[in-house]
Amino acid sequence: MEVLKTQAESFPMNGGDGVYSYVKNSSLQRSGVDSSKALIEKAIAEKLDVHNLPNSNSFRIVDLGCSVGPNTFIAVQNIIEAVDLKYKSQGLSSETPEFHVFFSDHTFNDFNTLFASLPERKYFAAGVPGSFYTRLFPQGSLHIVHSSFALQWLSRVPKEVVDINSPAWNKGRIHYTNAPNEVAEAYSAQYAMDTEAFLRARAQEIVCGGLMVILVAGVPNGTPPSQATPGILFHLLGSCLMDMAKRGTVDEAKVDSFNLPVYTTSPQEVEALVEKNGCFSIEKMEAVVRQGSGGQGGANRTSTHIRAGMEGIIKEHFGSEILDELFDRYSKKLADSQSLLESGKTLQLFILLKRNTNVC
Amino acid sequence: MEVLKTQAESFPMNGGDGVYSYVKNSSLQRSGVDSSKALIEKAIAEKLDVHNLPNSNSFRIVDLGCSVGPNTFIAVQNIIEAVDLKYKSQGLSSETPEFHVFFSDHTFNDFNTLFASLPERKYFAAGVPGSFYTRLFPQGSLHIVHSSFALQWLSRVPKEVVDINSPAWNKGRIHYTNAPNEVAEAYSAQYAMDTEAFLRARAQEIVCGGLMVILVAGVPNGTPPSQATPGILFHLLGSCLMDMAKRGTVDEAKVDSFNLPVYTTSPQEVEALVEKNGCFSIEKMEAVVRQGSGGQGGANRTSTHIRAGMEGIIKEHFGSEILDELFDRYSKKLADSQSLLESGKTLQLFILLKRNTNVC
Repeated sequence: MEVLKTQAESFPMNGGDGVYSYVKNSSLQRSGVDSSKALIEKAIAEKLDVHNLPNSNSFRIVDLGCSVGPNTFIAVQNIIEAVDLKYKSQGLSSETPEFHVFFSDHTFNDFNTLFASLPERKYFAAGVPGSFYTRLFPQGSLHIVHSSFALQWLSRVPKEVVDINSPAWNKGRIHYTNAPNEVAEAYSAQYAMDTEAFLRARAQEIVCGGLMVILVAGVPNGTPPSQATPGILFHLLGSCLMDMAKRGTVDEAKVDSFNLPVYTTSPQEVEALVEKNGCFSIEKMEAVVRQGSGGQGGANRTSTHIRAGMEGIIKEHFGSEILDELFDRYSKKLADSQSLLESGKTLQLFILLKRNTNVC
Repeated sequence: MEVLKTQAESFPMNGGDGVYSYVKNSSLQRSGVDSSKALIEKAIAEKLDVHNLPNSNSFRIVDLGCSVGPNTFIAVQNIIEAVDLKYKSQGLSSETPEFHVFFSDHTFNDFNTLFASLPERKYFAAGVPGSFYTRLFPQGSLHIVHSSFALQWLSRVPKEVVDINSPAWNKGRIHYTNAPNEVAEAYSAQYAMDTEAFLRARAQEIVCGGLMVILVAGVPNGTPPSQATPGILFHLLGSCLMDMAKRGTVDEAKVDSFNLPVYTTSPQEVEALVEKNGCFSIEKMEAVVRQGSGGQGGANRTSTHIRAGMEGIIKEHFGSEILDELFDRYSKKLADSQSLLESGKTLQLFILLKRNTNVC
């Protein structure tokens, strides 16, 4: 086994339980978890073969990119109830194994808050620090892997976009929306590399016949970033930073060297990468199209949600003193951009993969 | 499986890396870990049957009461090297499983600090929050359990000693040293109850043939607490609090209602409790007698070490404002009590238990 490297970069959600904490600002993600409940139940009922599950003295579940709760607890509970039901429906109630649940996120995730808020539970809980782009578990040890709104985070900003000598240098923007092709290509290449690493690691960790449930925001095939809600949201955030640079509140060179390590995938891209990996079958790929969701709930709410997710990475680069002004401007800009946001498209992708048994 | 309760009480070591942190004040415990290295190597070489180990697709190790490091990392590394060696010596190098290591401590242990300081490693790491007096892992999932200088912590202060109507009411003291028999008996009964719960939980979690290595401070059979180093140290700390009560710096009733949930066991007691449980054989019980170790390294060092372990629980009861005065007084009292401390006896107990195969 190779020596595990401590990962170079991490982008934890806001810890604690303050006004901009992820704990108090994750209801958008929550609605995704809720709407996936029925899909998860169906997936487990139809696709999990509890008669032939290897290494099932205990049933091991991981949530990758768990952040600090409460969504992770709800997601895990949904999975356990569905697995319980499956054992019952197969007349195996008495053989239902004990559940071992692993909550995993970056090393600098606030695990203290996560552990302190663990609910009463019928499972054994553990926290696993580390990047999901590396191996996190022993071979063949996991039965169900779940990841909800985490795989949009790249392992790093593509190095070309901060290289002043590269055609992909992303001057004056913080994302590939409205950027030259080279920038979008650098992001897309980084996403492919990361997803390949993700699938390679999971292929080793998941038992034959085990399932992987991935929820992630996406865009319809062929949608340019400028017509996709996430792209519009990130572009507007970047333009607020540029406004501040023009007024001298932040250093323009600092904006040039800042990029969000976030990528919004499409069903086509996911299919191609899963196929290339070869260890999983796509059992289901459901894309719920959402239009105009960037404006839902009002500009302030959207701004606060983006802040809960992005504050850490912005603070690290610019310092915390710019945050209030930045997100005030952002709220206003979002309010002024309602028609643009209402035209934006996004998908909520539900992807169900099964670990092949023929290549195990 | 019963619903797991969140535990009521916990007494974490000082987190972070400040001057009184456990991270910087755990060298006494470190010397215990170091001196046990050879014992652990021998135990694993002689007692671990790698040919007949159940559920060994991966090799699972837990350190119970891990605190925040670095001792836990050293202990785990020692175990892994010894297991590696054992597989090699049996001609099973190529079958050495991957290691899954669980670091476990109370929910309010500083897991963020622990995770941030994980070394480069050849194992997969996880953190497990919860009291080791409850179940923490699925049935038959652990191969080696390690616990170093943690089992002296009771799950709670025995309730009689804070009951003003009980003959065991412990007025004017914070420990059973120099207390009426009823107090010592209440502590001893709590220790027995806790150890029984500990062994019951571990008996379910450890695979047949799995090992449990326990290091803990003890006293020679039949030694009264007043002649034992831990007893002397706790009694002197209590007398500093009483001095402060007499001067009006702390409320005397607060001292009366405060008791350390700490018990120092003897080889005889451990043997009786393991026998009563019935699921483990005692493969080794080594007691290294130490005399006068309470004075080693000087009064300031001892005071700082006790502070790193006890500050949290004292702060919770008395508030943080008394800490500096209390530990100043304690340093002076320790310096004035050198001859008493030099007469005090303590044992470093190394206990090796093996999960019976006949009652699995």
